[in-house]
Amino acid sequence: MSQNLTTNSDRFLADLDALREFGKQGSGVVRPAFSPPDIDSRRWLTGKFEACGLRPRWDPAANLFGMPSQPGKPILIGSHSDTQPEGGWLDGAYGVILALEVARTCQEAGGPPVAVVSFQDEESAFMPMTGSCFFSGKLSRDTLYDLSNAAGQRYGDLASALPELEEPESLDPGLFSAFLEAHIEQGPVLDQAGEIIGVVETIVGSRQFEVTITGQQNHAGTTPMALRQDAVTGFAAFITKLEEQFTEIATPRSVWTIGRVDVRPNAPSIVPGALNCSVQMRDGSLSQLDAMCEITQKVAAQTAAERNLNISLLETKAVDPVDMDDQVIEAFCDAAGSNAPGAWRRMPSGALHDAMNLAPRIPTGMMFVPSIGGVSHAFEEDTEREHLAAGVQVMADAVTRLADQLGNTG
Amino acid sequence: MSQNLTTNSDRFLADLDALREFGKQGSGVVRPAFSPPDIDSRRWLTGKFEACGLRPRWDPAANLFGMPSQPGKPILIGSHSDTQPEGGWLDGAYGVILALEVARTCQEAGGPPVAVVSFQDEESAFMPMTGSCFFSGKLSRDTLYDLSNAAGQRYGDLASALPELEEPESLDPGLFSAFLEAHIEQGPVLDQAGEIIGVVETIVGSRQFEVTITGQQNHAGTTPMALRQDAVTGFAAFITKLEEQFTEIATPRSVWTIGRVDVRPNAPSIVPGALNCSVQMRDGSLSQLDAMCEITQKVAAQTAAERNLNISLLETKAVDPVDMDDQVIEAFCDAAGSNAPGAWRRMPSGALHDAMNLAPRIPTGMMFVPSIGGVSHAFEEDTEREHLAAGVQVMADAVTRLADQLGNTG
Repeated sequence: MSQNLTTNSDRFLADLDALREFGKQGSGVVRPAFSPPDIDSRRWLTGKFEACGLRPRWDPAANLFGMPSQPGKPILIGSHSDTQPEGGWLDGAYGVILALEVARTCQEAGGPPVAVVSFQDEESAFMPMTGSCFFSGKLSRDTLYDLSNAAGQRYGDLASALPELEEPESLDPGLFSAFLEAHIEQGPVLDQAGEIIGVVETIVGSRQFEVTITGQQNHAGTTPMALRQDAVTGFAAFITKLEEQFTEIATPRSVWTIGRVDVRPNAPSIVPGALNCSVQMRDGSLSQLDAMCEITQKVAAQTAAERNLNISLLETKAVDPVDMDDQVIEAFCDAAGSNAPGAWRRMPSGALHDAMNLAPRIPTGMMFVPSIGGVSHAFEEDTEREHLAAGVQVMADAVTRLADQLGNTG
Repeated sequence: MSQNLTTNSDRFLADLDALREFGKQGSGVVRPAFSPPDIDSRRWLTGKFEACGLRPRWDPAANLFGMPSQPGKPILIGSHSDTQPEGGWLDGAYGVILALEVARTCQEAGGPPVAVVSFQDEESAFMPMTGSCFFSGKLSRDTLYDLSNAAGQRYGDLASALPELEEPESLDPGLFSAFLEAHIEQGPVLDQAGEIIGVVETIVGSRQFEVTITGQQNHAGTTPMALRQDAVTGFAAFITKLEEQFTEIATPRSVWTIGRVDVRPNAPSIVPGALNCSVQMRDGSLSQLDAMCEITQKVAAQTAAERNLNISLLETKAVDPVDMDDQVIEAFCDAAGSNAPGAWRRMPSGALHDAMNLAPRIPTGMMFVPSIGGVSHAFEEDTEREHLAAGVQVMADAVTRLADQLGNTG
């Protein structure tokens, strides 16, 4: 087994604070893909790579890699450094600077070869996880370059303006032995349990229906209850039954959300004639997602029949769950057990991450640190500094374990 | 007993068709209070009054009266001839032209003295039932004249521009022995039952709450169900329980409507943190309304406790039910029984009408004719012409009966 690697918390936290300055607004960060702060921060990261002997490489999507000098197939670690239009300071950034610190430690200690990546546009300025979609081969360069953001800017124009970019297909997941991503949880589970590390087993999949309930708009004073076809009371009955039946089959990790509801004509004195809503289900198990879809369809049909309504379902989203690699999971569990005994758990990721795109190509895994109050995608997003530092050491230990198993000990 | 009065269906229907031309749009009518078609139609009605010996009088609200030439305290019959911004051709207009035909018949036949009124602005351009509010003494002339419509026009400016208007307080309910209003049902009950006449017992009262459900906005992927405070599933449970408990105590005439629902932030991937909705209840019985309010408050408190939500209720409307006069009800029932044996019923009015304002002042009653498909406040609003004509004869017979009882046989 390789020697233990000892990461430098102060240096790591100083770099994380330095990245926060690019696009800083109050306690938050505004650094969407290709914005001036995003480009400036990537060039700053290039300098950080060079300073510790990592060779910077920019692929055609403006994903920025730092390649190690040691021989052997490197383990790739990273996340993204772009943010939501009004983002927190840790979402993505944590995983990138953690990767820098682990790779730097490996460079200095003669540890296993570790490469760093900051994927471009995880936060959907162009599409969800744009950079890792391209890198993993799910998106061609031509399709990528034709994407536009809300301001009408073409991805290709913004990327081509960067002199650092390399020719297409110069970088590929096949160059790396594994991909490891650290991220803040963005949920309340670790924080509420007083735990420090979450080892991700699965990135959950989702199904989403657009539900349309059609009844009969009518006068709220003159239409007797028995003659009504009321879209809102029908909705209430539908959702209540859905909740009952979902709860019967749910695991503690199943979630469902009716986040959007639009009523027509939406006036107090008119029996509502129509209602649209979203029904979104997420679960780590494909069969569980299928079962929830079946329940949704069955309950919709029952409610429609019982209440003389028309209820139609349109599936608008279907993302399958992605399992993390068992060997990577074990390495994270071992490292978490050593560094945070009794204060870690295996868990699913309810949010999507770049790791989803890498998982079909190379052994891939993720680990979480807590989000205070579960808050994310908001300026208030934060994590205790000791937890941030603890995660870096867990990653370093997991890399050591994994490099031994993969045979890349440097 | 007075002689029977025989109304003239053809003449009545011709006048009703003539009124429809003022503001006609397709099959509907656009004739809001003080619009040019409204003023033109009132001047046309003035001519109709004069032609049959009724003396036109405009009160300060621009309510237009036709006063009979016979001695004695007249029975007042009428409704309104203004319409919704996109109104049907019968709502209000039917009751005004019916009154004209009955009064004209009385003039011609030497029947009891009958006066006609077309109240101004029943349809809420300034406030609900503005003209009858003023006439019945609920609204002072100063307050009336300070009201503004959506276009910012002052009631006082529009009324004062009419040379026909008389001085304040020249007309009063005390001049009349009773008020009778005929109207289309605006609901489906008579039409679905194949009946021709509805005798109104009560104009239902209403209570309305603005309900605010406050939970916690959260990420729809990363927040476990057990940690959610979801405003939409809370709403569904609240409405479902409300429906169960309302149904237990409801009479066939109780109605309730959740017509407006607004969710925040209303996005499929965000656990909804807040919801506002209206809960409106209508019933002819005050104690029933009180019971429904009590249930609403109890179920809201239960749901809030069970689901870790805050649910607040603000009463935004409270209109008490108004009973029609027993003697008038009996006169209508007798007349309906003679003219439409087996094809009439006693019923509540779920909608508000000018008769509500008159009822506290003089014996007041209402009768309905069917609305095809229950449609109203829409261009499609319609009633079979034979049913329209039948209503006129029922009103004439009721007037004969009532005049005998009130001692105003002319």
